[in-house]
Amino acid sequence: MHASDLGERALVRRITQRLASQRNLLGLGDDCAALPFGGTVLLATTDTLAASTHFPRGMAPRQAGHMAAAANLSDLAAKGGEPLGLLLALGLPPDFEAAALDEVVEGFAALCEAWGCEVLGGDTKPARELTLAVTALGEVPRAELLPRTGIKPGDLIAVTGSLGGAAAGMAALRRGLGPGLAQRLLEPQPRLAEGRALAKAKAARACMDISDGLAASLHQLAALNPCGFVLEVDRVPLDPAALAAARSPTDPWQWAVQGGGDYELLAALAPDQAGAALAAVEGAGGRLTVVGRAERGGGVWQERNGKREPLPDEGWEHFRATTR
Amino acid sequence: MHASDLGERALVRRITQRLASQRNLLGLGDDCAALPFGGTVLLATTDTLAASTHFPRGMAPRQAGHMAAAANLSDLAAKGGEPLGLLLALGLPPDFEAAALDEVVEGFAALCEAWGCEVLGGDTKPARELTLAVTALGEVPRAELLPRTGIKPGDLIAVTGSLGGAAAGMAALRRGLGPGLAQRLLEPQPRLAEGRALAKAKAARACMDISDGLAASLHQLAALNPCGFVLEVDRVPLDPAALAAARSPTDPWQWAVQGGGDYELLAALAPDQAGAALAAVEGAGGRLTVVGRAERGGGVWQERNGKREPLPDEGWEHFRATTR
Repeated sequence: MHASDLGERALVRRITQRLASQRNLLGLGDDCAALPFGGTVLLATTDTLAASTHFPRGMAPRQAGHMAAAANLSDLAAKGGEPLGLLLALGLPPDFEAAALDEVVEGFAALCEAWGCEVLGGDTKPARELTLAVTALGEVPRAELLPRTGIKPGDLIAVTGSLGGAAAGMAALRRGLGPGLAQRLLEPQPRLAEGRALAKAKAARACMDISDGLAASLHQLAALNPCGFVLEVDRVPLDPAALAAARSPTDPWQWAVQGGGDYELLAALAPDQAGAALAAVEGAGGRLTVVGRAERGGGVWQERNGKREPLPDEGWEHFRATTR
Repeated sequence: MHASDLGERALVRRITQRLASQRNLLGLGDDCAALPFGGTVLLATTDTLAASTHFPRGMAPRQAGHMAAAANLSDLAAKGGEPLGLLLALGLPPDFEAAALDEVVEGFAALCEAWGCEVLGGDTKPARELTLAVTALGEVPRAELLPRTGIKPGDLIAVTGSLGGAAAGMAALRRGLGPGLAQRLLEPQPRLAEGRALAKAKAARACMDISDGLAASLHQLAALNPCGFVLEVDRVPLDPAALAAARSPTDPWQWAVQGGGDYELLAALAPDQAGAALAAVEGAGGRLTVVGRAERGGGVWQERNGKREPLPDEGWEHFRATTR
């Protein structure tokens, strides 16, 4: 049996079966580890981005650096963390242009600096393709840590920002429409201000980012929580780029629900937290939209015009690449 | 200009020119970052190992996992740290065998457990070859942190364990002698007990690991400190495997001084620290041997039978691969 027969999530289950972490407050079901340390909680997350699997044709080297930092900072954002710094382990093909390398580093460092954190160190090695193995470190008070678990029937499900922009950008690039419509894909912004605001206001029960896609993320939450989820499709906030790039009326919805690459946050709010959550995210300059609810019983459903049907577990899964 | 025209160290200089870290107590000239955090110091280091550049033919999947953990734990050891946990970002070719993956994870996890630390999390992505991007987190009291700087003329230079075993193992594998002589190469042991003992006893001025080779490491220290170094070649403790695999009398010395892959520690000791340093390392079940000294003026020298000549900066440098 090969890695590609399993797909990313089965691979992760297979790997984590062997492992058990007592120290990690979030267990191994989260993209981020959380360790009690020195009276507070240290957050640590790692994500490797490689040219052939992560960097679309048309992405500039500076954007590759930016994206690698953004993907990791997004995992801190989802835990309510304040970033401390990043480590960058670079894999470089021997014939990689030094000038392009400067751009990669510039894009990476500039995003770190924009969030008041530092590139703390790293590693440089030869590789068959450009590879950025990044680790982000952050901090969050223990009482404010946002897990993926603890969601209860009746909780509201909300997302930051707008969705579908990244998948629309991928479609636009494939159609040769130029990078103008692909900003959300090529330069994702980590929702650190929004995540921190939700955590600080203790206004969310659980949180994760939806870089794998909204549908896939809801399925991941359904596997971790004793409830099901209903997505009210018409409430999903669509990205203007998704509307601009659409060729059919269903394109934007498809991109927003099944497409991956939107580094937005998905939060579960207890009903009495909803007001505080909306206020906290708006106070941080962001936007939060309720798009559904958790309910008794399992399954993940999409609801439209009062009609309900199963929401398939489709989205971005590495080793399978089901995004179309 | 390409990455291979620069070589690893010039690449690192080029990258770090763009960066500056205020928070990292060790700056960017160390393999490990050290951040004041919660009243103590958080250590964080990252090292990526890839099949084509790090895993010799004949290395078992379990050993690849072991080595990836060992290389990162070694960087904590050199700072006097106690390991907290590791993150493992796996890059897997789609046709990678699931059974081999289990072995990689087993080797990685078993070494972590042997040192009382945990696999805290990670990431799994497709890649063109097996790639293990690892981050190790550790802790050290601020007053015990071992830097690479601060060495003064008159300090003694000492190494843990014995040297040349890894390069001898590589030579043995190339000659088809089987993995018996290659244990030091294939299953390096991080010198965590020795590093921690030196730090706790405040018995060393500076420390680094010599995975790039003893000569290369002395040159790195010479670039960071206002002094030169004299290596007394006859005092270098040779690994029994280096003696067993030698074809000429110079082989073991060549392997021990220029060869890389020995995950031993190189420490600089103030003259009045030497006794305490030897006692501390022996108390931790290890071995420490004085092999030279720091002196006024620059340069790195080898001394043998009272004769002194320059010690070339040869050893393992990725993108150049000067080890023969």
